[in-house]
Amino acid sequence: MIRFENDYGEGAHPAVLNALIKSNTEQTPGYGVDAYCDRARATIRKLCEREDIDVHFLVGGTQTNTIAICAALRPHQGVIAATTGHIAVHESGAIEATGHKVLTLPSKDGKITADQVAALVKAHREDVTCEHTVQPAMVYISQPTENGTVYTLSELDALWHRCQALGLFLYVDGARLGYALTAPAADMSLPALSARCDAFYIGGTKMGALFGEALVIANSEMKKDFRYILKQHGGMLAKGRLLGVQFDALLCDGLYFEIGARANAQAQRLRAALEALGIPLRYDSPTNQQFPILPDTVLQKLSEKYAFSFWERIDDSHAAVRFCISWATEDANIDALIEDLRRWMSPTAQEPF
Amino acid sequence: MIRFENDYGEGAHPAVLNALIKSNTEQTPGYGVDAYCDRARATIRKLCEREDIDVHFLVGGTQTNTIAICAALRPHQGVIAATTGHIAVHESGAIEATGHKVLTLPSKDGKITADQVAALVKAHREDVTCEHTVQPAMVYISQPTENGTVYTLSELDALWHRCQALGLFLYVDGARLGYALTAPAADMSLPALSARCDAFYIGGTKMGALFGEALVIANSEMKKDFRYILKQHGGMLAKGRLLGVQFDALLCDGLYFEIGARANAQAQRLRAALEALGIPLRYDSPTNQQFPILPDTVLQKLSEKYAFSFWERIDDSHAAVRFCISWATEDANIDALIEDLRRWMSPTAQEPF
Amino acid sequence: MIRFENDYGEGAHPAVLNALIKSNTEQTPGYGVDAYCDRARATIRKLCEREDIDVHFLVGGTQTNTIAICAALRPHQGVIAATTGHIAVHESGAIEATGHKVLTLPSKDGKITADQVAALVKAHREDVTCEHTVQPAMVYISQPTENGTVYTLSELDALWHRCQALGLFLYVDGARLGYALTAPAADMSLPALSARCDAFYIGGTKMGALFGEALVIANSEMKKDFRYILKQHGGMLAKGRLLGVQFDALLCDGLYFEIGARANAQAQRLRAALEALGIPLRYDSPTNQQFPILPDTVLQKLSEKYAFSFWERIDDSHAAVRFCISWATEDANIDALIEDLRRWMSPTAQEPF
Amino acid sequence: MIRFENDYGEGAHPAVLNALIKSNTEQTPGYGVDAYCDRARATIRKLCEREDIDVHFLVGGTQTNTIAICAALRPHQGVIAATTGHIAVHESGAIEATGHKVLTLPSKDGKITADQVAALVKAHREDVTCEHTVQPAMVYISQPTENGTVYTLSELDALWHRCQALGLFLYVDGARLGYALTAPAADMSLPALSARCDAFYIGGTKMGALFGEALVIANSEMKKDFRYILKQHGGMLAKGRLLGVQFDALLCDGLYFEIGARANAQAQRLRAALEALGIPLRYDSPTNQQFPILPDTVLQKLSEKYAFSFWERIDDSHAAVRFCISWATEDANIDALIEDLRRWMSPTAQEPF
Repeated sequence: MIRFENDYGEGAHPAVLNALIKSNTEQTPGYGVDAYCDRARATIRKLCEREDIDVHFLVGGTQTNTIAICAALRPHQGVIAATTGHIAVHESGAIEATGHKVLTLPSKDGKITADQVAALVKAHREDVTCEHTVQPAMVYISQPTENGTVYTLSELDALWHRCQALGLFLYVDGARLGYALTAPAADMSLPALSARCDAFYIGGTKMGALFGEALVIANSEMKKDFRYILKQHGGMLAKGRLLGVQFDALLCDGLYFEIGARANAQAQRLRAALEALGIPLRYDSPTNQQFPILPDTVLQKLSEKYAFSFWERIDDSHAAVRFCISWATEDANIDALIEDLRRWMSPTAQEPF
Repeated sequence: MIRFENDYGEGAHPAVLNALIKSNTEQTPGYGVDAYCDRARATIRKLCEREDIDVHFLVGGTQTNTIAICAALRPHQGVIAATTGHIAVHESGAIEATGHKVLTLPSKDGKITADQVAALVKAHREDVTCEHTVQPAMVYISQPTENGTVYTLSELDALWHRCQALGLFLYVDGARLGYALTAPAADMSLPALSARCDAFYIGGTKMGALFGEALVIANSEMKKDFRYILKQHGGMLAKGRLLGVQFDALLCDGLYFEIGARANAQAQRLRAALEALGIPLRYDSPTNQQFPILPDTVLQKLSEKYAFSFWERIDDSHAAVRFCISWATEDANIDALIEDLRRWMSPTAQEPF
Repeated sequence: MIRFENDYGEGAHPAVLNALIKSNTEQTPGYGVDAYCDRARATIRKLCEREDIDVHFLVGGTQTNTIAICAALRPHQGVIAATTGHIAVHESGAIEATGHKVLTLPSKDGKITADQVAALVKAHREDVTCEHTVQPAMVYISQPTENGTVYTLSELDALWHRCQALGLFLYVDGARLGYALTAPAADMSLPALSARCDAFYIGGTKMGALFGEALVIANSEMKKDFRYILKQHGGMLAKGRLLGVQFDALLCDGLYFEIGARANAQAQRLRAALEALGIPLRYDSPTNQQFPILPDTVLQKLSEKYAFSFWERIDDSHAAVRFCISWATEDANIDALIEDLRRWMSPTAQEPF
Repeated sequence: MIRFENDYGEGAHPAVLNALIKSNTEQTPGYGVDAYCDRARATIRKLCEREDIDVHFLVGGTQTNTIAICAALRPHQGVIAATTGHIAVHESGAIEATGHKVLTLPSKDGKITADQVAALVKAHREDVTCEHTVQPAMVYISQPTENGTVYTLSELDALWHRCQALGLFLYVDGARLGYALTAPAADMSLPALSARCDAFYIGGTKMGALFGEALVIANSEMKKDFRYILKQHGGMLAKGRLLGVQFDALLCDGLYFEIGARANAQAQRLRAALEALGIPLRYDSPTNQQFPILPDTVLQKLSEKYAFSFWERIDDSHAAVRFCISWATEDANIDALIEDLRRWMSPTAQEPF
């Protein structure tokens, strides 16, 4: 079975693993206050070109989103997200479990706009009985989105200025941030991102780490007492230095961006092949996830040889599925997939859709 | 600096690390449904001599306690623990953050008794307005306790029968379980433990894993839908197989017990030296943590060369501190510590205390 | 100012108030275990023709919904409701504050169907990673809905059988239950309702009580330890007998149904007048709330003399508003409103809409 | 049965009831934004001699404590209270249900001291791993305490200054505030109290109202968005004006203080009689609750004629019980109780205790 179902099917990039091996027998204090974490923090500050950010290392994405959001909100406040946002649909109600509603906005491709946010907030504030509804206090976006799409710098800029004007926090889920920062069409750098949100995270798990996410907090209100909330929600790793070691390995020499660029390139090669075969794509994704719409007959054949994710039923005989490229994806596996699609699509690609 | 401050100051035992290295590039499904996790589950079932247990792998102890407890309790229920219990004092209110009160019982050495539990429950149930107070529904104990002490099989037996009679869950925090199971005085095996509680965990983080805890659930009510709650509380690791790989390495050939026995032996060697020097011990610990009561003057000198944990002020000039032995502790470091204590205690050990 | 903005703008129906006056100086035990509450409970059991129901008296609707729902759900479970459901939009995130997500279904008139529920549950259960999403465990409906519409017995029947088949709780918010039970078109009685849900409440606040809701629990799982959760969420009134006294007054001689029938009749008289004037109605409501769509020019004039609720903007020059009839509404006030509408609508009613 | 078991066994003081009757058919807006509530707020501001306080009206005490506390705290923060504090023992874990730990301090008579608070906070802040424990952020006291004792102005002053110095909120539960303010020994006025805490409430339920508590918030941080949290936790009464009407009746002409003074006088008459009979008192209470320690034989006889509350077992043959005086207690009932005690104690009072 060749696995394209996600980008966390293998272990760590060899360079990350080697860093763990090399430091294995050293003794360090626990809970993220060691020299490795400090070095990784310094690297992140340098890459972001901001000395005033706080950096915390966590193990996983749901954990990071939950803790960052619940640390910022008061009990009556909610967080705005796309209906397809990870926190809205794929975290088992983690945000609600901390007492907060996710206020959803419709989205075609996973992105939401500054105007949508402004309209929701305006409607809330103009309601004379606004205290009967949840108060919007934060905007959550994913970069790239769960659909592989990417916010442009100007879109982020518009969201950030609107959030600032409206007094909302802007939080960016960067589970796959490296893929967004290195996408061909991308015009956003780490410093540009750091300057345009209150907090975001640099995802490690889906970018070549064994595990780990680096949460960057720029807003001073959100920084306060953060380690308490980290601990309270089970997000403070005992052997915290494991996270520092990994992020240091990923970020000190640009490995993180190499991983992103390589996977994007492979994904775009796959995409070009899909398009050449006349296979429609559910989303216009410049990153490592591709969402072809395929006939059920082809999907049936594919599933015997490849692992991929079901995404959405499109009609009675077609469904959108997801193929993910990771740091470890071999070119030969992409070749094989393209070759099989070519063979299996030949008669069926003509089917009306 | 020689570190005795905790038992998670180094990385993983070489055998565990090698298993991670060896499996690194394999592709597996995420979230703990891979073959490695299944194999580790099978091993645990075999070691526990129970086929009917569920096994879930989590990353850390606070996370494991929180999720196990909140999965079992209804909103009005609380969990009984010693005042020194980890959930009562060192998890930043994690249990309360899920809505539940920790009902504390006094304890001299970290252990609580069946009679204490029964008295608390009786007082609650006899109160005609019992619904104005939190309903006790679970007992939490740590084996070994946070003070290094160990429940005997008969003590556990008494707790278990009382919990069964009273309709309470019994949950055992096994963050350092291997040290308890291999302590010289210990009379409790994994099968014996498995037969006498509703759930417990086999701690990995403090027993040679990079990270990880294996939660064993025997009670069918607690098993239901557990993976939802795991996910909701950020406890479901994306690359879940990392946990399976590690527990497989620890448990398939008895390494876990070797690590426990070795650390206990080192700790008892230290203890014998402490006693020979007339240094009082705060707790009678047969496991890898030792709690000497030392003069402040000696502690001052020690702190320049060794890292250890402050535990409790005893009087104006003495404090109890904790020395932890881990899988990686070198004999030479124990020797050095004993030697230094011998030198520094010689005049001061005679001080009245 | 003549107030039609809600049905809780006055105090209590005289008969209810007199019962409170008459019992005022009596001494009774607190917290709802007095003879008045017991008598009201007995009356409710008789009216529902079920001896096995539990009855609890609470002060308000948000409180009742929150407590009933959080008492039934486990942490990972959510409650299904119409997007317009009171718990989904007008309770300030009260359900989320207890940790649970409200899973919304679209609705045109406030009602949801058995098929919608079944489809949502099916999609959840067929998802191989279902534990990453909130588990639907309860259906919440309002009878009548927030839009004044009423579930027929066969619609309720369909929901109930589907919930039973799927293992979901069915909970009915009866804040205005009396209006639904006495609507001309209504074919549902208290016994019929009691036999087709796990819990519901008989609303008092909007039906002539000073305050109070009588929660009826038929499901034995939901009954368990309910008073604890009542107390924990601030829902146990110290002078609990005040609730028993009021529900006894409302229910012992049919006053509750008289209040409902009278208000419905007044509302239908208003509705007939609106329709005669060619004023479109946003919802087809047979109960005490009417939702005309009026030109902004007319609304402007109305607002100087009448209090009513803004409901929804329809287009640039029209909005839907809500007029509520209560137990205390005087016929003369309805007459005045109709007369004014007749006058102010004459030229504008012809405007294209 | 003559009831002394609590001070909420009857309905409302006649003057309060009359105010409700008089305003019953008026139409007002809901949710506490009516003229009655505004007038009561103005009266409270005048009585407190502070124009800058916010006043919210709630239905009950547990509700008021829960909402006030959870509105002020961040997720990792806890509230300090006496082990006997109402929030610590008699609210079914309501505070924990909002995610916060109650940090208890030992107390002999229900009161805690500024030094106790300072010591707890110091220990927390000096702990290098303080983020592993709950952060103390608020002090909760009851005036009078649950044991009838009263803080003097200088004790409150000390607490207030310490809280201010340490950056803690000070919150005062005034469920029976009127009894404290009018106790013979009391040296505290409403203005004095208002100037020495962040928030407190003027209890109505136990002081002659049908129900209701007036929460006074002086701290501007706690004021922010309070109505959202009120609504979210089911604390916003639909017919909110009922609370305004009642507090206006209680406070506009001093009735509240008359009720307090009268009950205190009756209680002190009872106390004098108890002391004359040589009956020990568990607490030195100058307010409306008295806690005699009586032989079980006498308690047995008493319980056939009087309702009172069991408080605490003292030894094998004695228990402390509570007698409560309310606004409605008749002198004749006190006379009867004293007479019976005199009769039943005559032989037994000599028993060694």
